[in-house]
Amino acid sequence: MEARLERVLIVGTGLLGASAGLALRAAGFSGRIDGWDKDAGQLQSALERGAVHKAASGTEDALRSACASDLILLSGPVYAILDWMQMLAPLLQPHQLVTDVGSTKAQITASAERLFTGSDRAGFLPGHPMAGKEISGAEAAEATLFRDAAWIFTPAGAFSQSTAAHSIADLWREWVARIGAVPMEMNAVEHDALLAWTSHLPQFVATALAAELQMRLGDDASRTRIGGRALREMTRLGASPFSMWRDIASTNADAIAAALLALEQRLAHLRENLRTPELREEFERANRFHP
Amino acid sequence: MEARLERVLIVGTGLLGASAGLALRAAGFSGRIDGWDKDAGQLQSALERGAVHKAASGTEDALRSACASDLILLSGPVYAILDWMQMLAPLLQPHQLVTDVGSTKAQITASAERLFTGSDRAGFLPGHPMAGKEISGAEAAEATLFRDAAWIFTPAGAFSQSTAAHSIADLWREWVARIGAVPMEMNAVEHDALLAWTSHLPQFVATALAAELQMRLGDDASRTRIGGRALREMTRLGASPFSMWRDIASTNADAIAAALLALEQRLAHLRENLRTPELREEFERANRFHP
Repeated sequence: MEARLERVLIVGTGLLGASAGLALRAAGFSGRIDGWDKDAGQLQSALERGAVHKAASGTEDALRSACASDLILLSGPVYAILDWMQMLAPLLQPHQLVTDVGSTKAQITASAERLFTGSDRAGFLPGHPMAGKEISGAEAAEATLFRDAAWIFTPAGAFSQSTAAHSIADLWREWVARIGAVPMEMNAVEHDALLAWTSHLPQFVATALAAELQMRLGDDASRTRIGGRALREMTRLGASPFSMWRDIASTNADAIAAALLALEQRLAHLRENLRTPELREEFERANRFHP
Repeated sequence: MEARLERVLIVGTGLLGASAGLALRAAGFSGRIDGWDKDAGQLQSALERGAVHKAASGTEDALRSACASDLILLSGPVYAILDWMQMLAPLLQPHQLVTDVGSTKAQITASAERLFTGSDRAGFLPGHPMAGKEISGAEAAEATLFRDAAWIFTPAGAFSQSTAAHSIADLWREWVARIGAVPMEMNAVEHDALLAWTSHLPQFVATALAAELQMRLGDDASRTRIGGRALREMTRLGASPFSMWRDIASTNADAIAAALLALEQRLAHLRENLRTPELREEFERANRFHP
Protein backbone atom coordinates (compact mmCIF):
# COMPACT_ATOMS: atom_id res chain seq x y z
CA MET A 1 0.00 0.00 0.00
CA GLU A 2 1.44 3.31 -1.01
CA ALA A 3 1.76 5.85 1.81
CA ARG A 4 -0.36 8.96 1.47
CA LEU A 5 -0.66 12.12 3.46
CA GLU A 6 -3.97 13.59 2.36
CA ARG A 7 -5.91 14.05 5.54
CA VAL A 8 -4.60 15.66 8.69
CA LEU A 9 -6.14 16.29 12.12
CA ILE A 10 -4.62 19.02 14.26
CA VAL A 11 -5.44 18.53 17.94
CA GLY A 12 -4.83 21.81 19.75
CA THR A 13 -5.31 24.75 17.40
CA GLY A 14 -3.41 27.32 19.45
CA LEU A 15 -0.30 29.17 18.29
CA LEU A 16 1.72 26.19 17.04
CA GLY A 17 -1.19 24.05 15.84
CA ALA A 18 -2.86 26.85 13.88
CA SER A 19 0.50 28.01 12.50
CA ALA A 20 1.18 24.48 11.27
CA GLY A 21 -2.17 24.49 9.45
CA LEU A 22 -1.52 27.89 7.89
CA ALA A 23 2.03 26.89 6.94
CA LEU A 24 0.93 23.62 5.32
CA ARG A 25 -1.69 25.36 3.19
CA ALA A 26 0.70 28.18 2.24
CA ALA A 27 3.24 25.53 1.16
CA GLY A 28 0.72 23.90 -1.16
CA PHE A 29 -0.76 21.12 0.95
CA SER A 30 -3.96 20.27 -0.90
CA GLY A 31 -5.39 17.68 1.46
CA ARG A 32 -8.02 18.17 4.14
CA ILE A 33 -7.14 19.56 7.56
CA ASP A 34 -9.53 19.03 10.47
CA GLY A 35 -9.03 20.76 13.79
CA TRP A 36 -9.98 20.34 17.40
CA ASP A 37 -9.41 22.40 20.51
CA LYS A 38 -11.22 22.18 23.85
CA ASP A 39 -11.18 26.00 23.85
CA ALA A 40 -14.04 26.87 21.47
CA GLY A 41 -12.59 30.34 20.85
CA GLN A 42 -9.25 28.95 19.71
CA LEU A 43 -10.97 26.46 17.44
CA GLN A 44 -13.25 29.09 15.91
CA SER A 45 -10.32 31.45 15.37
CA ALA A 46 -8.28 28.72 13.66
CA LEU A 47 -11.25 27.97 11.40
CA GLU A 48 -11.85 31.62 10.53
CA ARG A 49 -8.18 32.17 9.77
CA GLY A 50 -8.17 29.18 7.43
CA ALA A 51 -5.73 27.10 9.49
CA VAL A 52 -8.22 24.20 9.35
CA HIS A 53 -10.97 23.33 6.89
CA LYS A 54 -13.35 21.90 9.47
CA ALA A 55 -13.70 22.15 13.21
CA ALA A 56 -14.65 19.01 15.12
CA SER A 57 -17.86 19.42 17.11
CA GLY A 58 -16.51 17.74 20.26
CA THR A 59 -14.04 15.17 21.57
CA GLU A 60 -16.03 12.28 20.08
CA ASP A 61 -16.09 13.95 16.68
CA ALA A 62 -12.35 14.66 16.96
CA LEU A 63 -11.66 10.98 17.71
CA ARG A 64 -13.75 9.99 14.65
CA SER A 65 -11.74 12.43 12.57
CA ALA A 66 -8.51 10.96 13.99
CA CYS A 67 -9.57 7.48 12.86
CA ALA A 68 -10.09 8.81 9.32
CA SER A 69 -6.82 10.81 9.13
CA ASP A 70 -3.42 9.83 7.77
CA LEU A 71 -1.60 12.06 10.23
CA ILE A 72 -2.64 13.38 13.64
CA LEU A 73 -0.64 16.38 14.88
CA LEU A 74 -0.82 16.88 18.65
CA SER A 75 -0.16 20.42 19.85
CA GLY A 76 -0.39 22.05 23.27
CA PRO A 77 1.06 21.59 26.77
CA VAL A 78 2.99 18.34 27.33
CA TYR A 79 0.44 16.72 29.66
CA ALA A 80 -2.40 17.44 27.20
CA ILE A 81 -0.37 15.68 24.49
CA LEU A 82 0.26 12.72 26.83
CA ASP A 83 -3.50 12.50 27.49
CA TRP A 84 -4.30 12.41 23.77
CA MET A 85 -1.67 9.74 23.19
CA GLN A 86 -3.48 7.55 25.73
CA MET A 87 -6.84 8.14 24.05
CA LEU A 88 -5.63 7.63 20.48
CA ALA A 89 -3.33 4.61 20.80
CA PRO A 90 -6.05 1.92 21.06
CA LEU A 91 -8.24 3.51 18.34
CA LEU A 92 -5.82 3.97 15.45
CA GLN A 93 -4.54 1.66 12.74
CA PRO A 94 -0.98 0.70 11.71
CA HIS A 95 -1.16 2.77 8.51
CA GLN A 96 -1.61 6.00 10.52
CA LEU A 97 0.98 8.28 12.11
CA VAL A 98 0.74 10.45 15.19
CA THR A 99 3.28 13.24 15.67
CA ASP A 100 3.51 16.13 18.13
CA VAL A 101 5.09 19.52 18.80
CA GLY A 102 5.52 19.14 22.58
CA SER A 103 8.20 21.20 24.32
CA THR A 104 9.86 18.36 26.25
CA LYS A 105 10.51 15.01 24.65
CA ALA A 106 11.69 12.44 27.20
CA GLN A 107 8.26 11.64 28.70
CA ILE A 108 6.42 11.83 25.38
CA THR A 109 8.98 9.58 23.67
CA ALA A 110 8.91 7.09 26.56
CA SER A 111 5.12 7.08 26.43
CA ALA A 112 5.21 6.55 22.65
CA GLU A 113 7.49 3.55 23.15
CA ARG A 114 4.88 2.00 25.43
CA LEU A 115 1.73 2.99 23.50
CA PHE A 116 2.68 3.06 19.81
CA THR A 117 4.77 -0.06 19.46
CA GLY A 118 3.69 -3.27 17.80
CA SER A 119 2.25 -4.36 14.48
CA ASP A 120 -1.33 -3.47 15.47
CA ARG A 121 -0.56 0.10 16.52
CA ALA A 122 -0.21 3.37 14.65
CA GLY A 123 3.24 4.94 14.38
CA PHE A 124 4.44 7.86 16.50
CA LEU A 125 7.09 10.43 15.58
CA PRO A 126 7.98 12.77 18.48
CA GLY A 127 8.78 16.27 17.25
CA HIS A 128 9.55 19.76 18.53
CA PRO A 129 9.74 22.86 16.33
CA MET A 130 11.99 25.52 17.90
CA ALA A 131 9.51 28.28 17.22
CA GLY A 132 7.08 30.18 19.34
CA LYS A 133 6.05 33.52 20.70
CA GLU A 134 5.42 34.90 24.12
CA ILE A 135 1.79 35.35 23.01
CA SER A 136 -0.27 32.19 22.68
CA GLY A 137 -3.37 31.44 20.68
CA ALA A 138 -4.62 30.94 17.14
CA GLU A 139 -4.91 34.69 16.59
CA ALA A 140 -1.13 35.01 16.84
CA ALA A 141 -0.55 32.11 14.41
CA GLU A 142 1.54 32.75 11.27
CA ALA A 143 2.27 30.66 8.21
CA THR A 144 5.91 31.78 8.48
CA LEU A 145 6.38 30.88 12.15
CA PHE A 146 8.62 27.88 11.44
CA ARG A 147 10.79 29.47 8.77
CA ASP A 148 14.50 28.76 9.45
CA ALA A 149 13.63 27.17 12.80
CA ALA A 150 15.05 23.80 13.80
CA TRP A 151 12.36 21.09 13.95
CA ILE A 152 13.76 18.38 16.16
CA PHE A 153 12.59 14.78 15.90
CA THR A 154 13.40 12.32 18.67
CA PRO A 155 12.44 8.91 17.22
CA ALA A 156 13.19 6.14 19.70
CA GLY A 157 15.06 2.97 18.82
CA ALA A 158 12.43 0.75 20.37
CA PHE A 159 9.75 1.64 17.83
CA SER A 160 8.53 -1.22 15.68
CA GLN A 161 6.32 0.68 13.29
CA SER A 162 4.60 -0.46 10.17
CA THR A 163 6.16 0.31 6.81
CA ALA A 164 3.20 2.58 6.08
CA ALA A 165 3.70 4.61 9.27
CA HIS A 166 7.39 4.93 8.44
CA SER A 167 6.50 6.24 5.01
CA ILE A 168 4.09 8.82 6.41
CA ALA A 169 6.84 9.92 8.80
CA ASP A 170 9.09 10.50 5.78
CA LEU A 171 6.35 12.50 4.05
CA TRP A 172 5.85 14.58 7.21
CA ARG A 173 9.60 15.38 7.37
CA GLU A 174 9.31 16.58 3.78
CA TRP A 175 6.40 18.86 4.66
CA VAL A 176 8.32 20.21 7.65
CA ALA A 177 11.12 21.19 5.26
CA ARG A 178 8.61 22.64 2.77
CA ILE A 179 7.16 24.98 5.40
CA GLY A 180 10.69 26.35 5.91
CA ALA A 181 11.85 24.50 9.03
CA VAL A 182 15.09 22.52 9.31
CA PRO A 183 14.41 18.90 10.34
CA MET A 184 16.94 17.45 12.80
CA GLU A 185 17.25 14.21 14.73
CA MET A 186 18.22 13.97 18.39
CA ASN A 187 17.94 11.59 21.31
CA ALA A 188 14.93 12.56 23.48
CA VAL A 189 16.90 12.70 26.75
CA GLU A 190 19.67 14.74 25.11
CA HIS A 191 16.98 17.06 23.71
CA ASP A 192 15.62 17.80 27.17
CA ALA A 193 19.11 18.24 28.66
CA LEU A 194 20.12 20.68 25.91
CA LEU A 195 16.82 22.59 25.95
CA ALA A 196 17.16 23.13 29.70
CA TRP A 197 20.08 25.44 28.78
CA THR A 198 19.02 26.97 25.47
CA SER A 199 15.27 27.41 26.04
CA HIS A 200 14.08 26.70 29.58
CA LEU A 201 16.83 28.64 31.39
CA PRO A 202 16.29 31.80 29.28
CA GLN A 203 12.54 31.57 29.97
CA PHE A 204 12.91 31.20 33.73
CA VAL A 205 15.48 34.01 33.81
CA ALA A 206 13.05 36.31 31.97
CA THR A 207 10.24 35.26 34.31
CA ALA A 208 12.37 35.93 37.40
CA LEU A 209 13.57 39.29 36.05
CA ALA A 210 10.06 40.43 35.08
CA ALA A 211 8.57 39.26 38.39
CA GLU A 212 11.33 41.00 40.37
CA LEU A 213 10.89 44.25 38.45
CA GLN A 214 7.11 44.04 38.83
CA MET A 215 7.62 43.83 42.61
CA ARG A 216 10.14 46.70 42.63
CA LEU A 217 8.65 49.10 40.10
CA GLY A 218 5.05 47.98 39.82
CA ASP A 219 3.03 49.58 37.09
CA ASP A 220 4.84 52.94 37.22
CA ALA A 221 5.28 53.41 33.47
CA SER A 222 7.28 56.60 33.99
CA ARG A 223 9.94 54.45 35.65
CA THR A 224 9.76 51.29 33.56
CA ARG A 225 9.85 53.09 30.20
CA ILE A 226 13.29 54.33 31.19
CA GLY A 227 14.77 50.90 30.53
CA GLY A 228 14.25 51.20 26.79
CA ARG A 229 14.75 48.39 24.30
CA ALA A 230 17.14 46.34 26.45
CA LEU A 231 14.63 46.07 29.30
CA ARG A 232 11.73 45.23 26.97
CA GLU A 233 13.79 42.55 25.27
CA MET A 234 15.05 40.94 28.48
CA THR A 235 11.52 40.72 29.93
CA ARG A 236 9.42 40.01 26.78
CA LEU A 237 9.34 36.28 27.59
CA GLY A 238 7.95 37.18 31.01
CA ALA A 239 4.57 37.30 29.23
CA SER A 240 4.77 33.56 28.43
CA PRO A 241 1.75 31.56 29.59
CA PHE A 242 2.06 29.48 32.75
CA SER A 243 -0.19 26.80 31.23
CA MET A 244 2.59 25.86 28.79
CA TRP A 245 5.52 26.25 31.18
CA ARG A 246 3.98 24.36 34.09
CA ASP A 247 4.26 21.16 32.06
CA ILE A 248 7.80 21.96 30.88
CA ALA A 249 8.93 22.71 34.45
CA SER A 250 7.34 19.51 35.71
CA THR A 251 8.63 17.18 32.96
CA ASN A 252 12.20 18.55 32.94
CA ALA A 253 12.56 19.71 36.53
CA ASP A 254 15.97 18.20 37.36
CA ALA A 255 17.75 19.61 34.32
CA ILE A 256 16.12 23.03 34.75
CA ALA A 257 17.04 23.13 38.45
CA ALA A 258 20.68 22.38 37.60
CA ALA A 259 20.77 25.15 34.98
CA LEU A 260 19.15 27.65 37.36
CA LEU A 261 21.63 26.80 40.13
CA ALA A 262 24.56 27.30 37.75
CA LEU A 263 23.24 30.72 36.73
CA GLU A 264 22.62 31.75 40.35
CA GLN A 265 26.26 30.94 41.08
CA ARG A 266 27.48 32.92 38.08
CA LEU A 267 25.39 35.95 39.07
CA ALA A 268 26.88 35.73 42.57
CA HIS A 269 30.36 35.60 41.02
CA LEU A 270 29.61 38.73 38.98
CA ARG A 271 28.20 40.43 42.08
CA GLU A 272 31.35 39.70 44.07
CA ASN A 273 33.57 41.00 41.26
CA LEU A 274 31.93 44.28 40.20
CA ARG A 275 35.19 46.11 40.94
CA THR A 276 37.76 43.41 40.10
CA PRO A 277 39.51 42.38 36.85
CA GLU A 278 37.51 39.13 36.94
CA LEU A 279 34.56 41.15 35.59
CA ARG A 280 36.47 41.56 32.32
CA GLU A 281 36.80 37.75 32.02
CA GLU A 282 33.04 37.35 32.35
CA PHE A 283 32.30 39.99 29.72
CA GLU A 284 34.82 38.43 27.34
CA ARG A 285 33.28 34.99 27.86
CA ALA A 286 29.84 36.48 27.14
CA ASN A 287 31.18 38.37 24.09
CA ARG A 288 32.25 35.04 22.56
CA PHE A 289 28.74 33.56 22.65
CA HIS A 290 27.03 33.84 19.27
CA PRO A 291 23.76 31.88 19.13
CA MET B 1 24.19 88.75 25.77
CA GLU B 2 21.78 86.49 23.94
CA ALA B 3 22.50 82.79 24.29
CA ARG B 4 23.48 81.00 21.13
CA LEU B 5 24.12 77.41 20.26
CA GLU B 6 26.04 77.56 17.00
CA ARG B 7 29.19 75.64 17.65
CA VAL B 8 29.39 72.21 19.26
CA LEU B 9 32.30 69.95 20.16
CA ILE B 10 31.57 66.24 20.59
CA VAL B 11 34.25 64.54 22.70
CA GLY B 12 34.02 60.80 22.11
CA THR B 13 32.63 60.06 18.66
CA GLY B 14 31.59 56.46 19.33
CA LEU B 15 28.02 55.17 19.08
CA LEU B 16 26.29 57.84 21.17
CA GLY B 17 28.54 60.78 20.26
CA ALA B 18 28.38 60.14 16.51
CA SER B 19 24.63 59.42 16.69
CA ALA B 20 24.13 62.78 18.43
CA GLY B 21 26.01 64.52 15.60
CA LEU B 22 23.98 62.72 12.93
CA ALA B 23 20.73 63.39 14.78
CA LEU B 24 21.46 67.12 15.22
CA ARG B 25 22.22 67.57 11.53
CA ALA B 26 19.20 65.51 10.47
CA ALA B 27 17.04 67.73 12.71
CA GLY B 28 18.29 70.88 11.01
CA PHE B 29 21.15 72.02 13.23
CA SER B 30 23.05 74.40 10.95
CA GLY B 31 25.96 75.21 13.24
CA ARG B 32 29.43 73.72 13.23
CA ILE B 33 30.17 70.39 14.90
CA ASP B 34 33.77 69.49 15.76
CA GLY B 35 34.69 66.04 16.98
CA TRP B 36 37.43 64.34 18.94
CA ASP B 37 38.11 60.74 19.86
CA LYS B 38 41.36 59.25 21.11
CA ASP B 39 40.58 56.29 18.81
CA ALA B 40 41.60 57.63 15.37
CA GLY B 41 39.40 55.06 13.63
CA GLN B 42 36.26 56.18 15.49
CA LEU B 43 37.04 59.80 14.74
CA GLN B 44 37.65 59.13 11.05
CA SER B 45 34.47 57.09 10.81
CA ALA B 46 32.42 59.86 12.46
CA LEU B 47 33.90 62.37 10.01
CA GLU B 48 33.23 60.20 6.96
CA ARG B 49 29.68 59.54 8.06
CA GLY B 50 29.06 63.26 8.46
CA ALA B 51 28.49 63.15 12.21
CA VAL B 52 31.07 65.95 12.63
CA HIS B 53 32.29 68.63 10.24
CA LYS B 54 35.89 68.65 11.43
CA ALA B 55 38.04 66.24 13.40
CA ALA B 56 40.44 67.67 15.97
CA SER B 57 44.04 66.74 15.29
CA GLY B 58 44.86 65.85 18.90
CA THR B 59 43.96 66.55 22.53
CA GLU B 60 45.43 70.08 22.37
CA ASP B 61 43.42 70.87 19.26
CA ALA B 62 40.30 69.45 20.91
CA LEU B 63 40.82 71.69 23.96
CA ARG B 64 41.22 74.71 21.62
CA SER B 65 37.98 73.72 19.91
CA ALA B 66 36.29 73.37 23.32
CA CYS B 67 37.28 76.94 24.20
CA ALA B 68 35.65 78.16 20.98
CA SER B 69 32.43 76.12 21.33
CA ASP B 70 29.08 77.05 22.85
CA LEU B 71 28.37 73.49 23.91
CA ILE B 72 30.73 70.60 24.65
CA LEU B 73 29.07 67.14 24.61
CA LEU B 74 31.06 64.50 26.51
CA SER B 75 30.42 60.92 25.41
CA GLY B 76 32.06 57.63 26.36
CA PRO B 77 32.71 55.58 29.51
CA VAL B 78 32.02 57.38 32.82
CA TYR B 79 35.66 57.69 33.90
CA ALA B 80 36.65 59.18 30.53
CA ILE B 81 33.89 61.79 31.00
CA LEU B 82 35.14 62.54 34.53
CA ASP B 83 38.69 63.01 33.15
CA TRP B 84 37.47 65.48 30.53
CA MET B 85 35.50 67.40 33.14
CA GLN B 86 38.75 67.87 35.10
CA MET B 87 40.58 69.10 32.00
CA LEU B 88 37.86 71.43 30.76
CA ALA B 89 36.69 73.12 33.97
CA PRO B 90 39.63 75.55 34.35
CA LEU B 91 39.75 76.37 30.63
CA LEU B 92 36.17 77.33 29.83
CA GLN B 93 34.17 80.54 30.25
CA PRO B 94 30.84 81.21 32.01
CA HIS B 95 28.96 81.59 28.73
CA GLN B 96 29.73 77.98 27.74
CA LEU B 97 27.91 74.77 28.66
CA VAL B 98 29.27 71.25 29.09
CA THR B 99 26.84 68.33 29.00
CA ASP B 100 27.33 64.55 28.85
CA VAL B 101 25.68 61.25 28.01
CA GLY B 102 27.34 59.17 30.75
CA SER B 103 25.57 56.01 31.94
CA THR B 104 25.71 56.69 35.68
CA LYS B 105 25.02 60.13 37.06
CA ALA B 106 25.84 60.34 40.80
CA GLN B 107 29.63 60.69 40.44
CA ILE B 108 29.45 62.91 37.35
CA THR B 109 26.87 65.20 38.99
CA ALA B 110 28.90 65.39 42.23
CA SER B 111 32.01 66.18 40.21
CA ALA B 112 30.11 68.88 38.30
CA GLU B 113 29.04 70.45 41.58
CA ARG B 114 32.71 70.77 42.56
CA LEU B 115 34.16 71.77 39.17
CA PHE B 116 31.46 73.76 37.37
CA THR B 117 30.14 75.99 40.13
CA GLY B 118 30.81 79.69 40.53
CA SER B 119 30.56 82.80 38.43
CA ASP B 120 33.89 82.19 36.67
CA ARG B 121 33.08 78.68 35.53
CA ALA B 122 31.19 77.23 32.57
CA GLY B 123 27.87 75.51 33.21
CA PHE B 124 27.35 71.75 33.35
CA LEU B 125 24.14 69.83 32.61
CA PRO B 126 24.44 66.10 33.41
CA GLY B 127 22.46 63.99 30.93
CA HIS B 128 21.75 60.37 30.01
CA PRO B 129 19.86 59.30 26.88
CA MET B 130 18.26 55.86 27.37
CA ALA B 131 19.42 54.63 23.99
CA GLY B 132 22.18 52.35 22.89
CA LYS B 133 23.08 49.14 21.16
CA GLU B 134 25.07 46.11 22.07
CA ILE B 135 27.47 47.14 19.27
CA SER B 136 29.65 50.16 19.93
CA GLY B 137 31.37 52.57 17.57
CA ALA B 138 30.68 55.34 15.09
CA GLU B 139 29.92 52.83 12.33
CA ALA B 140 26.83 51.70 14.24
CA ALA B 141 25.68 55.31 14.81
CA GLU B 142 22.21 56.33 13.61
CA ALA B 143 20.43 59.68 13.39
CA THR B 144 17.30 57.95 14.73
CA LEU B 145 18.97 56.31 17.76
CA PHE B 146 17.32 58.63 20.29
CA ARG B 147 13.83 58.60 18.82
CA ASP B 148 11.21 58.06 21.56
CA ALA B 149 13.95 57.41 24.12
CA ALA B 150 13.94 59.10 27.50
CA TRP B 151 16.81 61.61 27.84
CA ILE B 152 17.29 62.09 31.55
CA PHE B 153 18.87 65.24 32.96
CA THR B 154 20.09 65.30 36.57
CA PRO B 155 20.83 68.98 37.25
CA ALA B 156 22.03 69.45 40.82
CA GLY B 157 20.61 72.01 43.17
CA ALA B 158 24.05 73.30 44.10
CA PHE B 159 24.79 74.69 40.64
CA SER B 160 25.27 78.44 40.47
CA GLN B 161 25.54 78.87 36.74
CA SER B 162 25.63 81.99 34.65
CA THR B 163 22.46 83.13 32.94
CA ALA B 164 24.10 82.41 29.60
CA ALA B 165 24.93 78.82 30.56
CA HIS B 166 21.34 78.36 31.75
CA SER B 167 20.08 79.63 28.42
CA ILE B 168 22.31 77.23 26.48
CA ALA B 169 21.01 74.40 28.68
CA ASP B 170 17.46 75.37 27.66
CA LEU B 171 18.50 75.41 23.99
CA TRP B 172 20.11 71.99 24.38
CA ARG B 173 16.91 70.55 25.91
CA GLU B 174 15.06 71.87 22.85
CA TRP B 175 17.50 70.12 20.50
CA VAL B 176 17.16 66.92 22.49
CA ALA B 177 13.39 67.08 21.88
CA ARG B 178 13.95 67.95 18.20
CA ILE B 179 16.04 64.81 17.64
CA GLY B 180 13.08 62.78 18.91
CA ALA B 181 14.05 62.10 22.53
CA VAL B 182 11.88 62.82 25.57
CA PRO B 183 13.68 65.12 28.04
CA MET B 184 13.12 64.25 31.71
CA GLU B 185 14.48 65.50 35.01
CA MET B 186 15.58 63.28 37.87
CA ASN B 187 17.77 63.39 40.93
CA ALA B 188 21.19 61.88 40.13
CA VAL B 189 21.21 59.41 43.04
CA GLU B 190 17.64 58.32 42.23
CA HIS B 191 18.72 57.89 38.60
CA ASP B 192 21.48 55.47 39.55
CA ALA B 193 19.23 53.57 41.97
CA LEU B 194 16.50 53.17 39.33
CA LEU B 195 18.90 52.30 36.51
CA ALA B 196 20.43 49.54 38.64
CA TRP B 197 17.08 47.75 38.17
CA THR B 198 15.97 48.79 34.68
CA SER B 199 19.30 48.82 32.85
CA HIS B 200 22.25 47.45 34.82
CA LEU B 201 20.49 44.33 36.14
CA PRO B 202 19.24 43.26 32.66
CA GLN B 203 22.78 43.75 31.30
CA PHE B 204 24.47 41.68 34.01
CA VAL B 205 21.82 38.97 33.66
CA ALA B 206 22.47 38.80 29.90
CA THR B 207 26.23 38.71 30.51
CA ALA B 208 25.88 35.91 33.07
CA LEU B 209 23.54 33.91 30.82
CA ALA B 210 25.76 34.30 27.75
CA ALA B 211 28.94 33.49 29.72
CA GLU B 212 27.31 30.41 31.28
CA LEU B 213 26.05 29.15 27.90
CA GLN B 214 29.45 29.83 26.31
CA MET B 215 31.03 27.59 29.00
CA ARG B 216 28.38 24.87 28.57
CA LEU B 217 27.85 24.85 24.82
CA GLY B 218 30.94 26.58 23.49
CA ASP B 219 30.94 27.39 19.81
CA ASP B 220 28.81 24.42 18.78
CA ALA B 221 26.46 26.25 16.43
CA SER B 222 24.41 23.11 15.84
CA ARG B 223 23.46 23.21 19.52
CA THR B 224 23.16 26.95 20.08
CA ARG B 225 21.02 27.58 17.00
CA ILE B 226 18.39 25.36 18.58
CA GLY B 227 17.48 28.10 21.04
CA GLY B 228 15.94 30.25 18.33
CA ARG B 229 14.76 33.81 18.79
CA ALA B 230 14.27 33.62 22.56
CA LEU B 231 17.88 32.58 23.16
CA ARG B 232 19.27 35.22 20.79
CA GLU B 233 17.21 37.91 22.42
CA MET B 234 18.10 36.96 25.99
CA THR B 235 21.84 36.92 25.20
CA ARG B 236 22.12 39.79 22.66
CA LEU B 237 23.32 42.18 25.35
CA GLY B 238 26.08 39.69 26.16
CA ALA B 239 27.96 41.33 23.28
CA SER B 240 28.11 44.65 25.18
CA PRO B 241 31.63 46.06 25.56
CA PHE B 242 33.41 45.69 28.89
CA SER B 243 35.00 49.12 28.43
CA MET B 244 31.63 50.78 28.94
CA TRP B 245 30.33 48.46 31.65
CA ARG B 246 33.48 48.43 33.78
CA ASP B 247 32.83 52.09 34.63
CA ILE B 248 29.10 51.52 35.25
CA ALA B 249 29.84 48.55 37.54
CA SER B 250 32.43 50.56 39.44
CA THR B 251 30.41 53.77 39.83
CA ASN B 252 27.14 52.03 40.82
CA ALA B 253 28.46 48.87 42.49
CA ASP B 254 26.33 48.88 45.64
CA ALA B 255 22.99 49.32 43.87
CA ILE B 256 23.91 46.73 41.21
CA ALA B 257 25.01 44.22 43.88
CA ALA B 258 21.68 44.63 45.69
CA ALA B 259 19.73 44.06 42.46
CA LEU B 260 21.82 41.00 41.56
CA LEU B 261 21.32 39.48 45.02
CA ALA B 262 17.56 39.99 44.77
CA LEU B 263 17.47 38.22 41.40
CA GLU B 264 19.63 35.34 42.67
CA GLN B 265 17.12 34.82 45.47
CA ARG B 266 14.19 34.91 43.06
CA LEU B 267 15.84 32.36 40.76
CA ALA B 268 16.45 30.11 43.77
CA HIS B 269 12.78 30.48 44.70
CA LEU B 270 11.74 29.45 41.17
CA ARG B 271 14.19 26.53 41.29
CA GLU B 272 12.71 25.26 44.57
CA ASN B 273 9.15 25.54 43.21
CA LEU B 274 9.36 23.97 39.74
CA ARG B 275 6.66 21.45 40.72
CA THR B 276 4.59 23.54 43.18
CA PRO B 277 1.66 25.98 42.72
CA GLU B 278 4.00 28.82 43.74
CA LEU B 279 5.40 28.67 40.18
CA ARG B 280 2.05 29.99 38.93
CA GLU B 281 2.36 33.01 41.23
CA GLU B 282 5.75 33.88 39.76
CA PHE B 283 4.50 33.57 36.18
CA GLU B 284 1.48 35.73 36.98
CA ARG B 285 3.69 38.36 38.59
CA ALA B 286 5.92 38.32 35.48
CA ASN B 287 2.86 38.46 33.19
CA ARG B 288 1.83 41.74 34.82
CA PHE B 289 5.10 43.52 33.97
CA HIS B 290 4.76 45.71 30.88
CA PRO B 291 7.81 47.93 30.30
